[in-house]
Amino acid sequence: MIKGIAASNGIAIAKAYKLVMPDLTVTKETVDDVEKEIKSYEDAMDCTSKQLEAIKEAASKNLSAEEAAVFDAHALVLSDPELKTQVEDKIKNEKCNAAAALEEVANTFVAMFESMGDEYFRERAADIKDVSRRLLANLLGKSLPNPALIDEEVVIIADDLTPSDTAQLNKNLVRGFATNIGGRTSHSAIMARSLEIPAVVACKTITDEVKDGDIIALDGIEGVVMINPDEETIKEYTQKRDEYIAYREELKKLVNEKTVSTDGHHVELVANIGSPKDLEGVKENGGEGVGLFRTEFLYMESAELPSEDKQFEVYKEILEGMAGKPVVVRTLDIGGDKEIEAIDLPKEMNPFLGVRAIRLCFQREDIFRTQLRALLRASVYGDLRIMFPMIAALGEFRKAKCILMEEKEKLIAEGVEVSDTLQVGIMIEIPAAAVLADQFAKEVDFFSIGTNDLIQYTFAADRMSSGVSYLYQPFNPSILRLVKHVIDSAHKEGKWAGMCGEMAGEPMAAPLLLGLGLDEFSMSATSILAQRKLIRELSQKEMADLANQAINCTTMEEVVELVEKVIKK
Amino acid sequence: MIKGIAASNGIAIAKAYKLVMPDLTVTKETVDDVEKEIKSYEDAMDCTSKQLEAIKEAASKNLSAEEAAVFDAHALVLSDPELKTQVEDKIKNEKCNAAAALEEVANTFVAMFESMGDEYFRERAADIKDVSRRLLANLLGKSLPNPALIDEEVVIIADDLTPSDTAQLNKNLVRGFATNIGGRTSHSAIMARSLEIPAVVACKTITDEVKDGDIIALDGIEGVVMINPDEETIKEYTQKRDEYIAYREELKKLVNEKTVSTDGHHVELVANIGSPKDLEGVKENGGEGVGLFRTEFLYMESAELPSEDKQFEVYKEILEGMAGKPVVVRTLDIGGDKEIEAIDLPKEMNPFLGVRAIRLCFQREDIFRTQLRALLRASVYGDLRIMFPMIAALGEFRKAKCILMEEKEKLIAEGVEVSDTLQVGIMIEIPAAAVLADQFAKEVDFFSIGTNDLIQYTFAADRMSSGVSYLYQPFNPSILRLVKHVIDSAHKEGKWAGMCGEMAGEPMAAPLLLGLGLDEFSMSATSILAQRKLIRELSQKEMADLANQAINCTTMEEVVELVEKVIKK
Repeated sequence: MIKGIAASNGIAIAKAYKLVMPDLTVTKETVDDVEKEIKSYEDAMDCTSKQLEAIKEAASKNLSAEEAAVFDAHALVLSDPELKTQVEDKIKNEKCNAAAALEEVANTFVAMFESMGDEYFRERAADIKDVSRRLLANLLGKSLPNPALIDEEVVIIADDLTPSDTAQLNKNLVRGFATNIGGRTSHSAIMARSLEIPAVVACKTITDEVKDGDIIALDGIEGVVMINPDEETIKEYTQKRDEYIAYREELKKLVNEKTVSTDGHHVELVANIGSPKDLEGVKENGGEGVGLFRTEFLYMESAELPSEDKQFEVYKEILEGMAGKPVVVRTLDIGGDKEIEAIDLPKEMNPFLGVRAIRLCFQREDIFRTQLRALLRASVYGDLRIMFPMIAALGEFRKAKCILMEEKEKLIAEGVEVSDTLQVGIMIEIPAAAVLADQFAKEVDFFSIGTNDLIQYTFAADRMSSGVSYLYQPFNPSILRLVKHVIDSAHKEGKWAGMCGEMAGEPMAAPLLLGLGLDEFSMSATSILAQRKLIRELSQKEMADLANQAINCTTMEEVVELVEKVIKK
Repeated sequence: MIKGIAASNGIAIAKAYKLVMPDLTVTKETVDDVEKEIKSYEDAMDCTSKQLEAIKEAASKNLSAEEAAVFDAHALVLSDPELKTQVEDKIKNEKCNAAAALEEVANTFVAMFESMGDEYFRERAADIKDVSRRLLANLLGKSLPNPALIDEEVVIIADDLTPSDTAQLNKNLVRGFATNIGGRTSHSAIMARSLEIPAVVACKTITDEVKDGDIIALDGIEGVVMINPDEETIKEYTQKRDEYIAYREELKKLVNEKTVSTDGHHVELVANIGSPKDLEGVKENGGEGVGLFRTEFLYMESAELPSEDKQFEVYKEILEGMAGKPVVVRTLDIGGDKEIEAIDLPKEMNPFLGVRAIRLCFQREDIFRTQLRALLRASVYGDLRIMFPMIAALGEFRKAKCILMEEKEKLIAEGVEVSDTLQVGIMIEIPAAAVLADQFAKEVDFFSIGTNDLIQYTFAADRMSSGVSYLYQPFNPSILRLVKHVIDSAHKEGKWAGMCGEMAGEPMAAPLLLGLGLDEFSMSATSILAQRKLIRELSQKEMADLANQAINCTTMEEVVELVEKVIKK
């Protein structure tokens, strides 16, 4: 039995498939017979070509066309004469072994493409890496795992899963993941949750302990992996799995239900989305709207800024897609750890405390105004709510709203129709705004609490820095007090308060947030139904008492203990 | 008339002395007559040697022995055969002009010494820069300013003042500074305040507008510089200066007075210090104790960590020097923007949100325990109060105090005497701790609010980043509310609350802080008397009303307007 970090809920029982790279370390050697090295390189190319052909054929059966297309790209790389010529020249000029020549040439290509920054070239770099790895394995007489050839149900065992690994997996046959490294927010974990595949990460040495074909029982709820368990255990896990599947079935029944507590208090469960592609998931999971549309993808797609018309089309698509349900759009939140090619951001010593989001929009009013015009034009296609990120002082909100109103008047003067019921609100993610929420509430239409940043700033602890991860304390009474003040302030002025940070989707947080009176919970679509089921089993009045106890606790640990009593009841 | 930023109070009227470097740009040229270049380099060396001799003689009259010693170091650099040989070799080998050879060789030496990191080598790099600059000027037939030769009262006009410039100034003859660049916290401004010399910085082009010998009237209170003013204006400024001098005289009478408001409310004005050398200034300026001793200098002096005994001696010296008055010692606050050679800090993406201060001490308990032992041993020599920086969660305070108590018990077991009345408190500089101050107050002996960081984190705005400097808002109601909550929480539990950030010494903040009930104001020693005079003219009860209005304002601007009415009365 191996204990790791539970990364995606569910139970899996299947054979192990080890997605582990063989050791492809190369030593550069001087060779006498240059022709022999060139010949062996040509043989490796032939062999690679045949493998790619076979994989592609299998992939076209198991994977979607889009997923299988990666192997066309690989075939193209392999047949690129530039690669072949450079490897052969190197062998000749340096009288070195083919493997070393290939490795050096491939590294140069990869570095060159990666330095170009653009998404397209980064994908080319990844393709070259994949193909040269396969060539190298053939040169060294080693075999690579071929996940595209999987044709039975498996649990994948890997060091970590990269996007290119997962592109080759047939999701219908993969029952679970277990990886050596990673955390709840690593790529593997996020992908597992979005595919609804159970996963356990940070299993340390699992690739050493498991052999291909071992029977694996994996519990993504408790974070446990059993290797070749006995009959008894398999029975137990099978029952657990069936119970979990039954629970998921039960959740599905809640898709069209309201989220109402046992004492009749109603809250809205909505989704965080990153692009129109996510709308389908929102509907499947019973999202009652969009609580956070992150608009950054529009700016990341190309090296140029998105035009007003292009943005308008996307906003319109989302508003129409949600068919009159509320859609909260956050204006551009670039800066901090997020960079885009089209905007030259200054290098700062502490980017999280620097020119980002609304601060950047004030420096680049042209970008801001274009986005606002696109939003205003789209506003007639649904229930649009515009939200400004990183507001710290009331003067900033007034300034942002003033710019919005200027653009609205210009559009009206141009004869363009703009919604009259458009709401304008702010993210609460900076302590200064949380503390002064009562004053803000008089002027905004709504708040949405961004807990990831609010916790980071309230504790002065970078959430990316492992050395201070112990200070990421969503359940610390100081955070709960700020959340309470924000919600109370909104209600006092007849406004609504939502939350769009990780915390809104956490089962542990649901009792507290319900108790504090939060109106809108915005989360990953896949978390909505579980959170709905949970809230429907709680009494708002009882949770209000619990929340009042929690804000008078001294530490996070005390709060967690309080909540656990409720959740485990 | 030029308007700049008022950087140090007072009025100066004197002749201009331009401390401006001539253009020493060098173009590398190929020369035919190598011997001629070598000869001209030797001539420049002779000339430089004579100048240094003359400056040293003047300096020995005008400056302290320590300040004059820099010229001995310069003479040593000049006579270093390594420098001469390398320059001559370069002239010969590259057939280039002496000036270019000198510049290249000097740059190499400077880069080498600077890369060694150590304070000693950095000073050597500065010496080489100074000497090579003088050599270069002589080679190019230009003359450098020689501030050490100043023998009459002057106002220094410069682009900016570096530490090496100021080391050469006779402080008794310098009546004021005006610089092109800088801000209230630049080196020039800080030095002007510590020398109590009026200064105006950020005058943009003042070095172009002023000629040597012009009459300058400088107002460091309003931030104004007049060039060759008329009789009338000189009369006006002379009167202003006399008034300011009279005001300073009046302040001096308050050295031994208490700081009591008109309605009998008593507060303590204490000093921030960085080393035992600062104690004299504390006493001269009537400091009633030390509100913040920054212990970092102990760790910055050498490449090795300071021993327990060495620290003990320093703490004892300060406690004895303050003769029973309170001394608040902050434990090591390294990390963020402060690095030391003896501790290897990881590079972080956002160092202000990373492993610093108490967080680092928890990682390096050995360093922490050594400091605590030294402090505990010194505690019997005065009124010691130990303060932990960057506390965010109550668990951290408990842990730090537990370590302190362990060391105390160990010392007692070893037969070492330790004070029984030692207070243990925390900095409030992280929003989480401010919000939860009522819980902290039950366990700590005191709070000291560090406004510089508290503002930075509350507004999520790096105070070093110019792009977000508009968010450094000490008078924003959100900050005042946090300060109020901290003070009220302390008082409810019978504890005291101080402040050791910049704000404590700001005249504009005095009415609010008095009104909010702050017990202890800790600031630069030179700000104490002015703040004492101001507070003695205010009514605490009236200021409490003012503070209550302020916390219900919506913006910083509204608060400033309120306070200005009081201050200007």
